[in-house]
Amino acid sequence: MPNYKLILQYDGSRYRGWQWLRDTDMTIQGKVEAVLSRCFETPVEVQGSGRTDAGVHALGQSASFCTVRDLPPKDILAALRQFLPEDIGAVDVSYAAPRFHARLSATEKTYRYRVWTTEAPCVFDRRFVYILPGNYALSTMQTASHLLEGTHDFRACSAVKTKKSTVRTLSRIAITKSGDELRFDFTADGFLHHMVRILTGTLLEIGRGDRPPESAVDLLNGGPRSASGFTVPAKGLCLMEVRYD
Amino acid sequence: MPNYKLILQYDGSRYRGWQWLRDTDMTIQGKVEAVLSRCFETPVEVQGSGRTDAGVHALGQSASFCTVRDLPPKDILAALRQFLPEDIGAVDVSYAAPRFHARLSATEKTYRYRVWTTEAPCVFDRRFVYILPGNYALSTMQTASHLLEGTHDFRACSAVKTKKSTVRTLSRIAITKSGDELRFDFTADGFLHHMVRILTGTLLEIGRGDRPPESAVDLLNGGPRSASGFTVPAKGLCLMEVRYD
Repeated sequence: MPNYKLILQYDGSRYRGWQWLRDTDMTIQGKVEAVLSRCFETPVEVQGSGRTDAGVHALGQSASFCTVRDLPPKDILAALRQFLPEDIGAVDVSYAAPRFHARLSATEKTYRYRVWTTEAPCVFDRRFVYILPGNYALSTMQTASHLLEGTHDFRACSAVKTKKSTVRTLSRIAITKSGDELRFDFTADGFLHHMVRILTGTLLEIGRGDRPPESAVDLLNGGPRSASGFTVPAKGLCLMEVRYD
Repeated sequence: MPNYKLILQYDGSRYRGWQWLRDTDMTIQGKVEAVLSRCFETPVEVQGSGRTDAGVHALGQSASFCTVRDLPPKDILAALRQFLPEDIGAVDVSYAAPRFHARLSATEKTYRYRVWTTEAPCVFDRRFVYILPGNYALSTMQTASHLLEGTHDFRACSAVKTKKSTVRTLSRIAITKSGDELRFDFTADGFLHHMVRILTGTLLEIGRGDRPPESAVDLLNGGPRSASGFTVPAKGLCLMEVRYD
């Protein structure tokens, strides 16, 4: 039973998210499984490194799947490139170790959130950035972001109540400015549901002076959801990379 | 009668081109005139620096218009930003000299044509590049491009037969590679219909070895359309800038 690793890109604008849903064929997982099932002439189930929400994009999503038949990775890649819609791209297919699992084996992920900060038009990237004109103090946001780095209970940054652990190790937050655009890069061993979008909303509130930078610590150590800021919309979010040991 | 200068960006994917057409409201000129006419409460006619074809994009299209009433440019800009569709962006509105005309006063324009040269996915820029996997010899194309620079009769690079002069001064062609993408930048005092797309097609044929670089001269000096290469599609083309003295 060969095990494969797949790397994908997608523009999530048209989709209801990564995860297969019964009532629609507009999911990334559904589109990929449809092509692979055709390719292998039997149903193929794909495991993503994680579920991206409706409207979220990916530059480097990874997935794995096991099959009964053995087809060369280059033939699978060619089939994916031929039959996937133009807003889903297959970057690479390779054989993986038998125990490799795209989600369980992942050690670190990086997400980027993009914000367009002026009234100036943003015609070409409009599907991939959140447009929120305003003045944001970059160094203040950077100071606050360093308070969030490390191993903490991020319960306040989760959209759902859960009994599972909400402790995560956020190894790095990098905030950079490129012209009229702010980029928030988050690297962690894992993310709670909406965690990146809530952290970005909180940092934007800090950047425009609506809350003090030291208030970032309020959302650590298991504080309530109300301790953190607003949830920025899905369209500015992109899964950049998933790393494995 | 105040005269205004307008700078626009657009993603041309959905549109039938710049020029107003009777049977559709999907033209850039039509969309802009609709907002301005509402703003001035009387029909306003806009002069573009030139017509871009269906599917062609612009980063810096310019246009001019005269009105009876005098409204502050910042109010016009705000109205355009509020009412134009999200794939048309108003960059700037300013008062212009009484004799200024976006097309007649233009001294130079720059167009960029983008080609994606590998099988690798191009999910985020797919609307703005022409995907044509292949090996292209950059220095060979650059050598050929220098033969095209200068003042020549570019009749062979025009999609339409005309009795008007087909002599143009092509002051600069710059061909650069950025990752998997080739960019062809053309600067001239004016362009014939499809000229950039035919020049790019010819250079691509030279780059992949289908025609010798010195054959570029065959399409100068009034040669027939058959002297030049294929016409690359509209989606890779973008009007970058229009300059005035």
